[in-house]
Amino acid sequence: MTDTFSFLAEPADTRESIMQATYFALCEHGYAGLTIARIAEDFEKSKSLLYHHYDSKDELLLDFLGFMLEEFQRSIPEDGKEPPEKRLEKIIEGSLEPETWDEGLKFTRAMTELRAQAAHDERFRKHFTDHDRVLRETVVETIETGIGQGVFRDVDVEQVAAFLVAALSGGMSQLATTESDLSPPIREELDRYVSVVLRAE
Amino acid sequence: MTDTFSFLAEPADTRESIMQATYFALCEHGYAGLTIARIAEDFEKSKSLLYHHYDSKDELLLDFLGFMLEEFQRSIPEDGKEPPEKRLEKIIEGSLEPETWDEGLKFTRAMTELRAQAAHDERFRKHFTDHDRVLRETVVETIETGIGQGVFRDVDVEQVAAFLVAALSGGMSQLATTESDLSPPIREELDRYVSVVLRAE
Repeated sequence: MTDTFSFLAEPADTRESIMQATYFALCEHGYAGLTIARIAEDFEKSKSLLYHHYDSKDELLLDFLGFMLEEFQRSIPEDGKEPPEKRLEKIIEGSLEPETWDEGLKFTRAMTELRAQAAHDERFRKHFTDHDRVLRETVVETIETGIGQGVFRDVDVEQVAAFLVAALSGGMSQLATTESDLSPPIREELDRYVSVVLRAE
Repeated sequence: MTDTFSFLAEPADTRESIMQATYFALCEHGYAGLTIARIAEDFEKSKSLLYHHYDSKDELLLDFLGFMLEEFQRSIPEDGKEPPEKRLEKIIEGSLEPETWDEGLKFTRAMTELRAQAAHDERFRKHFTDHDRVLRETVVETIETGIGQGVFRDVDVEQVAAFLVAALSGGMSQLATTESDLSPPIREELDRYVSVVLRAE
């Protein structure tokens, strides 16, 4: 993650420092064990600043989720800059890394807990609606460019994107909530799906 | 659900009555809002019996999850009793109903909250490991029968099953945690995947 997101290695300003502290506290304590006090432990600057900015843990986490979505968007190469198949691969990799590195597993677990808040909290539901829409739109854009270039078949792009994002989301959820790591076979079959269903002959 | 599971319409014994009360209390209050007292409200027999059997809400819910997994296994037609493609369809329908009926949505939301407990609670992680394994094994068995009968191609069954179960799991999670219902396009593309990747020419 520190390779992908600069705020984790070198936060540029106070907000990025807060986001960095939130990220590490989430990895360490998960959502259930998180408190603003624990985030403050990882926040080198003034603790009172943290309490000044956010009234509750959930308010801080909703800000964090919005920030991470922007970071994700920035991490995807611009459409057209590289081959569509390569870009699609980067989107898939961003959600479903083949190896289960320790920090990534902890972060995926925390994200699964955050997503589950959406079952009873409209603010989280609004965020994850946006999150999944952004992910789908990025996939749609990539496939459309590929169709335009003749490298992908003329498929129902919205439908394919909904399916792809569901498979990624389910893969992450399984990684976070079971003892088995099925990311490698899921990734393999996802690649085969792209190759058989999407790639033009 | 009442069509699929007889314990919801007519519980056969005390345990099934407890499971019925738990199901309806989960749909009404979700995991976050659930207490043993609230389950007791839906339990017509002695409330003290409920407290006698279970020390905590989580203990009761883990028993409920095990019970529901057995009910799911019972609801799937025996292998070989009907065409493999039909059986696969029933497995898919069991997780991802095309229409969002109110009770089903509430139950899917509660299950998403329960699954998220697995991020920090080993007992829940053990259950969802079993749950996903049972689902995958049922898919594997169905595809293998189909390959034997010559209706499915000779694919990597474990890999296909891991991918299918991830897509189903992700579809349920999206239904539970976003404002958009993407079950219809996900189902459509799942059918297309089965038809293009699995079905023998």
